[in-house]
Amino acid sequence: MASTRSFDDIRALLHKIRGPDEAAIAAARARQAELTKPAGSLGRLEDIAAFLAGWQGTPRPRIEKPLVAVFAGNHGVVAQGVSAYPPSVTAAMVANFRAGGAAINQICRTFDLSLEVYELALEEPTGDMTKEPAMDEAACAGAMADGMEALRSGPDLLVVGEMGIGNTTAAAAIHCALSGGAPEHWVGRGAGVDDAGLKRKAGAVARALARHQGALDDPLAVLSRLGGREIAAMAGAILAARIRRTPVLLDGFVVSSAAAVLHGLDPSALDHCLAGHLSAEQAHVQALQRLGKTPLLNLGMRLGEGSGAALAVAVVKAAVACHNGMATFAEAGVAGKEAG
Amino acid sequence: MASTRSFDDIRALLHKIRGPDEAAIAAARARQAELTKPAGSLGRLEDIAAFLAGWQGTPRPRIEKPLVAVFAGNHGVVAQGVSAYPPSVTAAMVANFRAGGAAINQICRTFDLSLEVYELALEEPTGDMTKEPAMDEAACAGAMADGMEALRSGPDLLVVGEMGIGNTTAAAAIHCALSGGAPEHWVGRGAGVDDAGLKRKAGAVARALARHQGALDDPLAVLSRLGGREIAAMAGAILAARIRRTPVLLDGFVVSSAAAVLHGLDPSALDHCLAGHLSAEQAHVQALQRLGKTPLLNLGMRLGEGSGAALAVAVVKAAVACHNGMATFAEAGVAGKEAG
Repeated sequence: MASTRSFDDIRALLHKIRGPDEAAIAAARARQAELTKPAGSLGRLEDIAAFLAGWQGTPRPRIEKPLVAVFAGNHGVVAQGVSAYPPSVTAAMVANFRAGGAAINQICRTFDLSLEVYELALEEPTGDMTKEPAMDEAACAGAMADGMEALRSGPDLLVVGEMGIGNTTAAAAIHCALSGGAPEHWVGRGAGVDDAGLKRKAGAVARALARHQGALDDPLAVLSRLGGREIAAMAGAILAARIRRTPVLLDGFVVSSAAAVLHGLDPSALDHCLAGHLSAEQAHVQALQRLGKTPLLNLGMRLGEGSGAALAVAVVKAAVACHNGMATFAEAGVAGKEAG
Repeated sequence: MASTRSFDDIRALLHKIRGPDEAAIAAARARQAELTKPAGSLGRLEDIAAFLAGWQGTPRPRIEKPLVAVFAGNHGVVAQGVSAYPPSVTAAMVANFRAGGAAINQICRTFDLSLEVYELALEEPTGDMTKEPAMDEAACAGAMADGMEALRSGPDLLVVGEMGIGNTTAAAAIHCALSGGAPEHWVGRGAGVDDAGLKRKAGAVARALARHQGALDDPLAVLSRLGGREIAAMAGAILAARIRRTPVLLDGFVVSSAAAVLHGLDPSALDHCLAGHLSAEQAHVQALQRLGKTPLLNLGMRLGEGSGAALAVAVVKAAVACHNGMATFAEAGVAGKEAG
C-alpha cells in the first residue's frame, strides 16, 4: 500500500474491502448466551465483543497488541488567526509525546497501549486553504500512504488520533464541504479560541469553501484542498485497517473529518470503526450522527492526541475480558432463567 | 463502628462527617492549569482528579488500593414472583465470584482491582415486605455494621456493588417510599422478568407500601422494612467511607437505593460518591437525578455485581495518571496560550 501515489490508487484500495466474519459473530453471540449473566445485561460490552469477533475473524477476539497512532501536521490556515496557540506548539507537543509528558502517554501507560507518533513534514505547513489548495493530489495521496504504515506492526486494535495547531478549522471545512450547513455550524473553540477567534474560524471556512467551489464534488478533492497531512494520514490509516479487517477506535472531531472523507467515498468504509468518545468540540455530535456512530464515552474531553479513544480501549478490554473469561452457566453450576 | 446496634448509633455516625479538603482541591486545580493541555480539555477527568484530591486530602491523589465490595443477600419478597431467576442463584453466583467466573472477576482482573464478597446470611432471607418488615432494627443496623467492615483494609477508592435475587423489587420499594411516584415508575425488568413479572413487581411494591404506611417517615425505617441485608450493608459501607473520607463509586439501581437512604438522612452524606454508570434498569436515571449525580459511563449495562462502577475505575485511574504524570508547560518547554 506504500506505493499509493494517486487518488485512483486510493479508489482501487476501496474495492478490496470485505465485510466482517459473520460466522465468528454468530459464534460469539452463541457463547454470550451461555455466560453467567442475564441475557444482554453487559449491554454494549456484548456488542463490542461481537464486533471484534467479526473483524478479527474469531469467536474469541483478543486485545493483545493495541496501538495508538498519533499523526501530527501543520496548517497554513493558522495565518488567518484561527488558533489560540502558535503553530510551534505542534512540534513542541510531538517532543512532549516522545518524552512521555502528554496526557496520551499517561493513558497509554495506564492501559498498556503502544504509542506511535507520526510527524508529517511539520516544517512544511500545508497551503492556506483560504488562498490555495492545502495539498495537491500527490501530497495528499502520499500522506495517506504514510498513514497506512501504522498498520505495519499488525495491531489487533488501532486508535487513531492527531495533533496539529489549526486542524479543527480544517476539519470544520471538510465537514462543511461534505455535509453542507453553515460554517458556524461546524466550527468550535478547538483548543480554546475566544469569540473573535471563533468568528475568524467561521470566516476562514467560508472563504475556503468559496475559493474551492466547483472542485469539491469528490471527497478526496475535499481532503486535499481543505485538509492537512495528518488528516490525510488518518484517512489512510483507517482505510488500511479496513482492508486488513483491523478494528479501529476513532477519537474526536478532527479524526471524524478524516473518517467522513472515507464515508463519503463508501459508507461501508467505516464498518470496522467504533467512535471512542464524544468530544466537547461542539460539532462532533453532528459529525458522529452523520457517520452513524454512537460514542462509547462522553466525558467532556476535547484534547485530541487520541486521548478519548485511548481511554475507550479500557471499555473494549473489559468487554473482551468478560467475553473470554466468564464461566458458562453449566461450568459454574448456576441455574438459568426460569421458564415461567 | 462495628459496635453499631441501633438506628441511633447510625445517626450519631452521621454527625461525624466532614467535607473534603478544600486546600487540596485548590492545589490540584492550580496544578491542572500548568499541565500541557488546553485548560479544561480533559473534561470530567480533571473534575475527578480534583474530587479525589479533596477526599484523599492531597493535591496528588492516588489509586493504589482500589476495592470492589460486593454484598449479597436473599429476599422474602421473591415469594411474590418478582424475579426471572430462582433465589438459589444468589448463593450460586457468590460461589461463581469466589471461583473467578463472573463478569466482576474479569473486570477486576483487567484493571487490577481487589474484590471482596460479603455474604449476608443467604440461608436466612429477609421477611416478605408485602406481609411483614423485611428486617427489624437490630438486623438492619447489624447489616449496616457488617458493611462498614469493607473499609477495614483502608482502600483508597471503594466500589459498592451487590448480588441478590429479588433485590430490584426491594430497591424500587425504597425509592418509591423515599421519593414518591407510582410503583410502576420505579420497577424495571431487573435480571429479565417478562411483562407479567413486571406487573407482579409493581403489585408487590404497592402492597408493601400500603402494608407499612405510616411507618416510613424515617429513611432508616424505610431501609429496614423494605430493604434487604445487602442494601443495608451497602448503606453502611458508603457511610463508613464518608466518615473516613474515602471516595466511592456507586454501581447501579440497587446501589442507588442504599445511597438514597443516606441521602434522605443527610444530602451531604453522598458528597464523596460518584455515580459509576447509568444502568439500563429503567428507573436508575431518575434515581440518579434525585441524588444529583451524573454517571461516568452509559453503556447499557444492567448486571449488578458492581460491574459498571468497577469499569468506571478505569476512567478514574486515567484521571489520576494524567493529573500526576503529565508534564507542565514549563517542564516540557511548550508555549502556552497566546495572549491575544
